[in-house]
Amino acid sequence: MSNRFQLRRNNLRSLLKKEGINAVLVTNFVNVSYLTGFSGDDSYLLLAGNEEILLSDFRYEEQIAGECPDVSAFIRSGSEPMEQAVKKLLKGNRPLAVEADSMTLAVQGKFAEALDGRTFVPLSGLVEKLRMVKDKWEIEEMKKAAKAAKRAFETAKAALRAEQTEIDVRNHLETQMKLFGAEGTSFPSIVAAGPWAARCHAVPGGRRVGDGELLLIDWGAVVNKYMSDNTRTLITAPKPSAKLRKIYDIVLKAHKAAIEAVAPGKICSDIDAVARGIITDAGYGRFFGHGLGHSLGREIHENPRFNTVSSHILEPGNVMTVEPGIYLPGWGGIRIEDEVLVTKTGYEILTPNLPKEFEEMIVDVF
Amino acid sequence: MSNRFQLRRNNLRSLLKKEGINAVLVTNFVNVSYLTGFSGDDSYLLLAGNEEILLSDFRYEEQIAGECPDVSAFIRSGSEPMEQAVKKLLKGNRPLAVEADSMTLAVQGKFAEALDGRTFVPLSGLVEKLRMVKDKWEIEEMKKAAKAAKRAFETAKAALRAEQTEIDVRNHLETQMKLFGAEGTSFPSIVAAGPWAARCHAVPGGRRVGDGELLLIDWGAVVNKYMSDNTRTLITAPKPSAKLRKIYDIVLKAHKAAIEAVAPGKICSDIDAVARGIITDAGYGRFFGHGLGHSLGREIHENPRFNTVSSHILEPGNVMTVEPGIYLPGWGGIRIEDEVLVTKTGYEILTPNLPKEFEEMIVDVF
Repeated sequence: MSNRFQLRRNNLRSLLKKEGINAVLVTNFVNVSYLTGFSGDDSYLLLAGNEEILLSDFRYEEQIAGECPDVSAFIRSGSEPMEQAVKKLLKGNRPLAVEADSMTLAVQGKFAEALDGRTFVPLSGLVEKLRMVKDKWEIEEMKKAAKAAKRAFETAKAALRAEQTEIDVRNHLETQMKLFGAEGTSFPSIVAAGPWAARCHAVPGGRRVGDGELLLIDWGAVVNKYMSDNTRTLITAPKPSAKLRKIYDIVLKAHKAAIEAVAPGKICSDIDAVARGIITDAGYGRFFGHGLGHSLGREIHENPRFNTVSSHILEPGNVMTVEPGIYLPGWGGIRIEDEVLVTKTGYEILTPNLPKEFEEMIVDVF
Repeated sequence: MSNRFQLRRNNLRSLLKKEGINAVLVTNFVNVSYLTGFSGDDSYLLLAGNEEILLSDFRYEEQIAGECPDVSAFIRSGSEPMEQAVKKLLKGNRPLAVEADSMTLAVQGKFAEALDGRTFVPLSGLVEKLRMVKDKWEIEEMKKAAKAAKRAFETAKAALRAEQTEIDVRNHLETQMKLFGAEGTSFPSIVAAGPWAARCHAVPGGRRVGDGELLLIDWGAVVNKYMSDNTRTLITAPKPSAKLRKIYDIVLKAHKAAIEAVAPGKICSDIDAVARGIITDAGYGRFFGHGLGHSLGREIHENPRFNTVSSHILEPGNVMTVEPGIYLPGWGGIRIEDEVLVTKTGYEILTPNLPKEFEEMIVDVF
């Protein structure tokens, strides 16, 4: 079980070696967890020479012994600041790499004072670069999360009634995710009825399902710390309008075409362009104002991104959301989102059997 | 409704004025929300001279118009980086205060490049200093969160059965919090049976309630973005051991004595010392390895802290947890936690009627 963490640490060391650096202080708690298997927070990982030390405190002493027996633990006392603990553990005076994407100016100030005279090398996206390519264990966890989310959604969809509020639906959906094995939600679930769905990140409220023509649900489950992310727009009107049908079809076409275009070697901005082209050609370009998607894993937004400017080249192991949308203020919004794993030959959708055709989205809520 | 946000921005301006600074870029999303009422993220607030500008993107355009009509919005395009948007909006060349506690080295690097020649003044704890003292609106929300958490706990306690696993109890508790009005949980709930409770931040698993002598539950609700935080240790053994009773009484005594000591003008480390003294005198000092408590509000851990080194002086409006614990590896852990509001004359417990006496913690689960 613990071999994968050692493998990740070895990969990090190889990256560092290319930069000519021998020691790194990992301060992003998610990265610390990724590299060690430790599930808590408030802890740093120091890799220096051959040493691998997890700096933590009393609260996590027993947990670390259980979760990462292959790493040395340094349990500092409550009165000893992190920077003093690192000072104590660091030998020699060689440059120390730090994580530029998580180390704040305040933390750096403290370290600069404590480690007076040592050269800091702020590196950006070091561990995140490793995390962009999911390994087989991570893909397994992400599939579990996607499955829990899928089954919960199907349950909430089956139970949908006109008198439920957005909050009722959210509560039901989130409860079901836990019953299907999730430990939590990837983000605050979005459940938006009718015109409220014009807000990309709508907060659920007291609007009733039966009062809107559509119900947008954007939700995700967390299983073993790995996240899922999907969106479906349900049709709750007994007689959907032609406008609703038209916009749904444009979004679905853009969604499918972008997924079809996913393959190793493709440039991220080109995938975005596939969906954006379809929506723009249909005359709704300015109502699709966000990027097409993002990577995810331990965090809900990771790199790379599908947007108009990303030059990242897709490689096997990237997991990306594909989530085009059209948002019309005062009317509503339609978004369709799946997670796509880049494989050696093309792609794999993490929720292969989650319906998305217009007819399949119609729910008789009355 | 929006007056309180203007008031907070005015308070921030007064703090800045004392530092001789005219412009600040708020980059911590929680601080942005605190100062504007905006409930989304990925947005910065720029206060410069008399201007108050919220820098955001397409996804939040409609939401910002609805939530903070009294602030100007600058909606950047997807291809325009934040630092370029700020460059466009900033006039003159006066020093710009930035948040040292949230701005990372990577972000600072980008801003330094874009705003070439401008002086940055990294300030620590600027908005956080304001947030330490909760205003009446915040206290109201925190009481709502505490009430939702309390009622959910009582429901879960009433329903407790020997065959439930820690995960079952967590799921029930979290579902109930939502039914009582919470939009989410303050943190991943801790539900730990028997020896597993020796881990301060135990992750719930498949251990059965009936197999342990005790069940530690540390949970919190979020209502309107404000958080609660309580811990109770339930007694699930039909005949509790003398050891359990003894340790429970020590922790409860420390908990009550520390709360009694809370008053404006008191030093935080002195409150910690009250609880720590009782536990140490009883011979368990080394098994209480964490600080006595922390402030909370929009985030689960805020300043000030109750620990052995904090010289912060309590003032009315501080809300602190008081959570002493004794953790014995292989045996289990007992922690009792309430939230205490510092008032003009003393203190107020946010969950006044949530039982904590030993006899009240006994549940007949079989």
